[in-house]
Amino acid sequence: MKIAVDGMGGDFAPAEIVSGAVAGAREYGVGIALVGPEEAMRHELARHDCSGLDMDIVDAPEYLVEGEHPAYALRQKRNASVLVATKLVRDGKAEAVVSAGPTGGVVAAAMFILGTLEGMSRPVVGGPFLGFAPETIMMDLGSNVDCQPYQLLDFAIVGSVYAEKMLGITNPTVALLSVGAEEGKGNEQVQETYPLLQKCGLNFIGNVEGYDIPTGKANVIICDGFVGNIMVKFAESLGKTIGSWLEERLTGRLAERDVRQMAEEVVLATNAADAHGGGPLWAVNGVACVAHGRSRAAEITKTIGQARLAVEQDLVGSLRAELVAARRRLGIAS
Amino acid sequence: MKIAVDGMGGDFAPAEIVSGAVAGAREYGVGIALVGPEEAMRHELARHDCSGLDMDIVDAPEYLVEGEHPAYALRQKRNASVLVATKLVRDGKAEAVVSAGPTGGVVAAAMFILGTLEGMSRPVVGGPFLGFAPETIMMDLGSNVDCQPYQLLDFAIVGSVYAEKMLGITNPTVALLSVGAEEGKGNEQVQETYPLLQKCGLNFIGNVEGYDIPTGKANVIICDGFVGNIMVKFAESLGKTIGSWLEERLTGRLAERDVRQMAEEVVLATNAADAHGGGPLWAVNGVACVAHGRSRAAEITKTIGQARLAVEQDLVGSLRAELVAARRRLGIAS
Repeated sequence: MKIAVDGMGGDFAPAEIVSGAVAGAREYGVGIALVGPEEAMRHELARHDCSGLDMDIVDAPEYLVEGEHPAYALRQKRNASVLVATKLVRDGKAEAVVSAGPTGGVVAAAMFILGTLEGMSRPVVGGPFLGFAPETIMMDLGSNVDCQPYQLLDFAIVGSVYAEKMLGITNPTVALLSVGAEEGKGNEQVQETYPLLQKCGLNFIGNVEGYDIPTGKANVIICDGFVGNIMVKFAESLGKTIGSWLEERLTGRLAERDVRQMAEEVVLATNAADAHGGGPLWAVNGVACVAHGRSRAAEITKTIGQARLAVEQDLVGSLRAELVAARRRLGIAS
Repeated sequence: MKIAVDGMGGDFAPAEIVSGAVAGAREYGVGIALVGPEEAMRHELARHDCSGLDMDIVDAPEYLVEGEHPAYALRQKRNASVLVATKLVRDGKAEAVVSAGPTGGVVAAAMFILGTLEGMSRPVVGGPFLGFAPETIMMDLGSNVDCQPYQLLDFAIVGSVYAEKMLGITNPTVALLSVGAEEGKGNEQVQETYPLLQKCGLNFIGNVEGYDIPTGKANVIICDGFVGNIMVKFAESLGKTIGSWLEERLTGRLAERDVRQMAEEVVLATNAADAHGGGPLWAVNGVACVAHGRSRAAEITKTIGQARLAVEQDLVGSLRAELVAARRRLGIAS
């Protein structure tokens, strides 16, 4: 298996990316196509022992920077590393692409070059977001802010495939996020989505409330990206607030190192991005994994592991098949 | 000033309610009309020293219980204590009513007997909900799940009056909860509400994100009741989860009492209902204050203090005037 790694994506490119890619090649036994300015890539690679590894360099003299408008930048920079890396997947020269951003650029490159699966207009972003509930996935976490019921159905299918293929959960439970557990509770969006989820063939257990998110009541919790984005940022901020409060309250009562460790644990358990590193962009017609912009080598290596798992589990094929099957059960032509 | 207290509302009625009412009469210098079955009220009152206090009993032989459908129960029980107490306000025999529930019954009684302010169809529920941000009010927290932009405008007006009159904040800042700080970020609801808030005369500072809720960035944060209800329940659950985690991690490293106290502090700081006791129902044409069902005497006394403040500050008149002024600025006939 060959994985294309964007050598210039992320705050610590290229050094940490190349370092993580070399470790990924060794740890996961995959081939790596390192994409970026040839000289820079060669220079970084020379600092590592690559004996016995399948490491190529693919030249891409340009790259995106944080703050550019993604679609505009990609039109200007035809040889941007993320674009060249994504094309390797389209052309069958790599099975997956890994990039540490900018996220908007990775998403735009994936949409332009690989396209989205039939019936889905935008990538879906989600995953486990609380360390306290590692087997609970929330979908969507911000890509799609105004959603129709059939989009929430798509998120449920994506989430089920995620839980099954990436987390190894058999027959994952799926729930709709609402203001009450009973059927009929919720806004119009929830009430219209409920019957679709009942009939689509997933293991739908009904509505859950905000209270149920940290308790692991469902494996897949569905909401629109407006609610999801607010939740995930609120959790992150509340975790940091409680972490600071803990530090203040425990200082002088426990060893300084222990105080810092406890505060960091709370922050990490409530901070999706830092805790999970990279994962696949869903609904894209190919495996594209985005790592956090702040990723160091270790996170890049982990993301390469996620990419390998996604290819091995045939995520894209599984999702396509599930979308077709669910729509057939609902009598919707796909 | 006379305040009607529903002697039979709440889990610890009548004993704790009567005890809290007696203390409220003394502490806040208000008259109390204690509403409930005459014998039971007289019996409870006899256990307290009421010398020098203005305490009446108003007979109401029936009362609501938890689990009944509020509107149905109120039609069956014409002499229910909450109904009789609310009628005292309508008839000018009391300036405010205080009840510890059931909440649905207090809301229904307030709507039927007192009505809502012009242009508002349902009561609005909100307030500070995080101990970490005591000067940040969220509106709405669950009464109104599908909202039009003009309703979010109403919540902003309510929140401003709340911050100014009840918390003493001059010219409170108002923000819309969204997925990004920039104008134009958000779902359709936010994008349509934004210009209304810009022109309505409030101190509107734009959008805030989920991240900004615990940091006190705005005094009034506006969202629909679907988002608000999910947030408040999520915060409560996350706080309890972190509290339990803390207890587990600190046991054996700090004194047991200190461990329990720290865990309780986190739970309280994230739990709106327990932390704040009672407050006014907004948009009602009269002062009706709901205390939590689990209220003991101390919370009832505090809620009586809130009711006195609401009357003194002329909450209802202030809100009515603000609604008219804002609609005039926007060129909307009210």
